[in-house]
Amino acid sequence: MSTPTLDDVRAAAARIASLVPPTPVLRSVAIDEWIGTRVHLKAEHLHATGAFKLRGATNAILLLDEDAAARGVAAHSSGNHAAALAVAAARRGIACTVVMPEGTPSTKRAATEAAGAQVIMCAPTLQARAATVAQVIADTGAVEIHPFDDPRVIAGQGTATLELLEAVPGLGMVVAPVSGGGLLSGTAITAHGIDPRVAVWGAEPTGADDAFRSLAAGRLVLDGPSDTIADGLVAQLSERTFRILRDHDVHVVTVTDQQTVDAMQRLAHDAKQLVEPSGAVALAGLAQLAADGVHLPLDVGVILSGGNVDLGRWSALVSSDRPA
Amino acid sequence: MSTPTLDDVRAAAARIASLVPPTPVLRSVAIDEWIGTRVHLKAEHLHATGAFKLRGATNAILLLDEDAAARGVAAHSSGNHAAALAVAAARRGIACTVVMPEGTPSTKRAATEAAGAQVIMCAPTLQARAATVAQVIADTGAVEIHPFDDPRVIAGQGTATLELLEAVPGLGMVVAPVSGGGLLSGTAITAHGIDPRVAVWGAEPTGADDAFRSLAAGRLVLDGPSDTIADGLVAQLSERTFRILRDHDVHVVTVTDQQTVDAMQRLAHDAKQLVEPSGAVALAGLAQLAADGVHLPLDVGVILSGGNVDLGRWSALVSSDRPA
Repeated sequence: MSTPTLDDVRAAAARIASLVPPTPVLRSVAIDEWIGTRVHLKAEHLHATGAFKLRGATNAILLLDEDAAARGVAAHSSGNHAAALAVAAARRGIACTVVMPEGTPSTKRAATEAAGAQVIMCAPTLQARAATVAQVIADTGAVEIHPFDDPRVIAGQGTATLELLEAVPGLGMVVAPVSGGGLLSGTAITAHGIDPRVAVWGAEPTGADDAFRSLAAGRLVLDGPSDTIADGLVAQLSERTFRILRDHDVHVVTVTDQQTVDAMQRLAHDAKQLVEPSGAVALAGLAQLAADGVHLPLDVGVILSGGNVDLGRWSALVSSDRPA
Repeated sequence: MSTPTLDDVRAAAARIASLVPPTPVLRSVAIDEWIGTRVHLKAEHLHATGAFKLRGATNAILLLDEDAAARGVAAHSSGNHAAALAVAAARRGIACTVVMPEGTPSTKRAATEAAGAQVIMCAPTLQARAATVAQVIADTGAVEIHPFDDPRVIAGQGTATLELLEAVPGLGMVVAPVSGGGLLSGTAITAHGIDPRVAVWGAEPTGADDAFRSLAAGRLVLDGPSDTIADGLVAQLSERTFRILRDHDVHVVTVTDQQTVDAMQRLAHDAKQLVEPSGAVALAGLAQLAADGVHLPLDVGVILSGGNVDLGRWSALVSSDRPA
């Protein structure tokens, strides 16, 4: 499968069920009032590794044959895929090496090392990440588990939306953050596989808006360094994820870092949830859609993608009281 | 019913079902490892009013006859009962007046006023609270809904444990914070009604340990001002709640404010939950029981009672990174 289907997502859900418990769907009256409709918060920050990435990494590692598994796995990641891969590899008892860019939050590095993976730091560019992981593979024979450009990973990420639509059968829209596009691709495949009428939106920081510009241009636009507090959203679409998003008519809304911080504050004050900046981008995007006058159905799903942030940094970001 | 029974709790659950959705039970691998057993976090801070108090207040207000309802309700509360009563009264369309002690967090006062209740401030003593609410009743004819010394309220609070035991049938212990004892009484009645072997513990700040001292002395001990960051736990047991706790052989563990802050940090870092100090006391108490070598069963429930805290204050309390 170069492009996974709803059947692949359902198979992934069955495959990972014993290792990845379902996450709750949370509600907040105050957030409903803010957005103007019923908002269902898919709490992907409540995974054992603090992010949805555990779904795709677990699915990919369980699909390795014995020979591949024996060689171990490797990946580059700004953090959440790394921790997920480390935990999934440890559960299968295989080696794991992850390449992380300098500047990765210490919470994410610590979680990866605590799970038993070897961490190699590199310069904070996509080129350095790819080159370093290629060297690891050349040296060790490890199998690369790409953080998003992998149909096994995309199918795994889709299981979040499978759970969401089971919990909220009448859902009319789902908003997910977009970085490399693995989560958003899995979201679109799953939502549209179940009901083609569900609107699927991506949300992206203005400072890392390659998906927005790529979909607008009708071709993959890869240019410029990223500049955003959402450290989990700095990757760029692959040809595969671009094609999936384009074919599913997915649109992307962009938000400023201040809007993301506002959403973090709302989630803390109104829903009592602590999420990392990337984890609040989808809610910020939904608020922007509401402000833009986009029609919102009665029930909207928002994927809170992760919660791995140093508490000191979180407090500094969410430093004021209730947003106005 | 001067003392509610499990049947009263079950009736309360049916009565409030359409107004008070069940709260999730959350897990954290890191918290399990910290405590040394499986910890099931009953997320009572995720109610619409941010605390378990909505259960008892809703049950009490729905049980008022038409004549009583027409006179409106009044109560004194350090905050969470106030907001709950205000919301429950507004839903039934009746008047609500609440007396709050000076020093009540602005979050709690704002939530109460936003729900349409009239707030009257008084000196921060239990005597001033009782006297002020008595004056309100004399002036308006309102019906007092006591925050804990009321069997309707106790039965309502018990519904949290009913949900917890339905979600985790093999639960061997439950830990709840204790202030006036309404939640803990409802917890004991419900847990022991379902299975008398479930161990029921209260957790209380050392700076407001009247329940600990009362149960140790075998009589109600009401003395001394409270001194704790857990502003929701400064009330003292009534004769009714003392008797229930004594008859159910409930024990109380005390924790310092620093232990409560440590538990708040754990809940933030490991479970991504933002709770008020009172909401972390039960987890701090369970950690103390583990440190004391008390036998812990395989599955332990902990009631996270509330999440209403100003974000600035929360950040100041949880100012360091991961606890050692």
